[in-house]
Amino acid sequence: MNSSRRTVLRAAVAGSLGVGLAASSSSPVAAREPGGDGPRIGILLYEGFSLLDPTGPAEVLSRVPGAEVVMIGERTGPVRCDTGQAALIADVTVDDMRDMDVLIVPGGSDEAVMAVFDNDRLRDWIVRVHKRTRFTTSVCTGAAILGHLGLLKGRRATTYWAGAEFLESVGATYVPERYVRDGKIITSAGVSAGQDMAYYLAGLLTDRRTGEALELALEYDPKPPFGTGDAQEASQELKDLALKLLKDSQG
Amino acid sequence: MNSSRRTVLRAAVAGSLGVGLAASSSSPVAAREPGGDGPRIGILLYEGFSLLDPTGPAEVLSRVPGAEVVMIGERTGPVRCDTGQAALIADVTVDDMRDMDVLIVPGGSDEAVMAVFDNDRLRDWIVRVHKRTRFTTSVCTGAAILGHLGLLKGRRATTYWAGAEFLESVGATYVPERYVRDGKIITSAGVSAGQDMAYYLAGLLTDRRTGEALELALEYDPKPPFGTGDAQEASQELKDLALKLLKDSQG
Repeated sequence: MNSSRRTVLRAAVAGSLGVGLAASSSSPVAAREPGGDGPRIGILLYEGFSLLDPTGPAEVLSRVPGAEVVMIGERTGPVRCDTGQAALIADVTVDDMRDMDVLIVPGGSDEAVMAVFDNDRLRDWIVRVHKRTRFTTSVCTGAAILGHLGLLKGRRATTYWAGAEFLESVGATYVPERYVRDGKIITSAGVSAGQDMAYYLAGLLTDRRTGEALELALEYDPKPPFGTGDAQEASQELKDLALKLLKDSQG
Repeated sequence: MNSSRRTVLRAAVAGSLGVGLAASSSSPVAAREPGGDGPRIGILLYEGFSLLDPTGPAEVLSRVPGAEVVMIGERTGPVRCDTGQAALIADVTVDDMRDMDVLIVPGGSDEAVMAVFDNDRLRDWIVRVHKRTRFTTSVCTGAAILGHLGLLKGRRATTYWAGAEFLESVGATYVPERYVRDGKIITSAGVSAGQDMAYYLAGLLTDRRTGEALELALEYDPKPPFGTGDAQEASQELKDLALKLLKDSQG
């Protein structure tokens, strides 16, 4: 192979990535040193979560200097998402991690979220962890879990657009924004909105300049090809079709 | 629990999700029936991929009616991403899946991408699969892999902004857009851009109305809090910081 092709990114040519290459072991991925000097971020996985809810924020927050992002489950090992077509690994159990700067609770299928409602071990864990976080956050219908536990009572919050009534039923005031901060609780809207929240949160955990650089690092300059993602502007017919696509795709 | 809370989404109140609930097994996630009547979409996982590159498109495309999204690896089991902080499960091996409508090649760390350059088994598999796909696609530096294999020669293509020079070095014309289609090859820009490509691709695989409904289904109405994700407008200082954040976060 031509040696000029031994870099992929321009920066590597300038040597900044070359250092990492020279020092690397034979495996392209080494576990990062635990216990860095950055924030510790725990993401709860449960069967039937929506794949992008944990992975969008994880992609962003794992780039925060020194941050440790940890996937947490009832058991270690694979946790399958709501479509059944992908699984993430839980690296630690809820018993092994109770202290974190940020807790992220993803959303999932109705069934999956309601299974968490009925799961004493997860409920107790969330409530206990929440007492000591700097920020307790949710993506999509993860807000329903926080709400069911009473954590959103009297607070402004957001969730998936079709979950607004549920949020009001647990005493929250639904706000149709991408993410809503009320005290130390930050909720985000449906699925994709976890990314907007994550950049905002990264800025809170570091500084504005780092937040700006993270958006560039992950080329977060989205251009939705259809421009129909705002439920405030959607017809009932499109909403019905959207919910049917979700329902039919859940395992 | 109050029975009025046995739904999370508004649609469930109207009964459209209630059917699924009543018919469900005790596990909230059942594997979907394979061999549906929709497109078959294969996503290649390799050690050191970037987490959002496969998961963004998977979230979108797994909602396409009848679609089967399959995570493919050299071996089945966990494949860890570039930060070392998350792992996805490969459900089938490259030997077990060679026919698909859509192939998605994610990007990863420089080291990871170059390890694929040197991996005869993966190289041969990609080239062979590509001959029979409807669409061969990439996210971020996944385009470097397609380019290294000669698949982008003489084509318009895109990739992560810092990978533009590499793309030109393999005979492609770099186009700074979110996604670029040239024949049956669709490349997308860095990390986040895989989602824009996925909605576009979903529209190609179905119809415009389904694409519109998918954006609403996943509330894809992004609002980047900093607005700095466009490399065309970024200062060199911000680019350097972005690349440093990437480098430092890779395991």
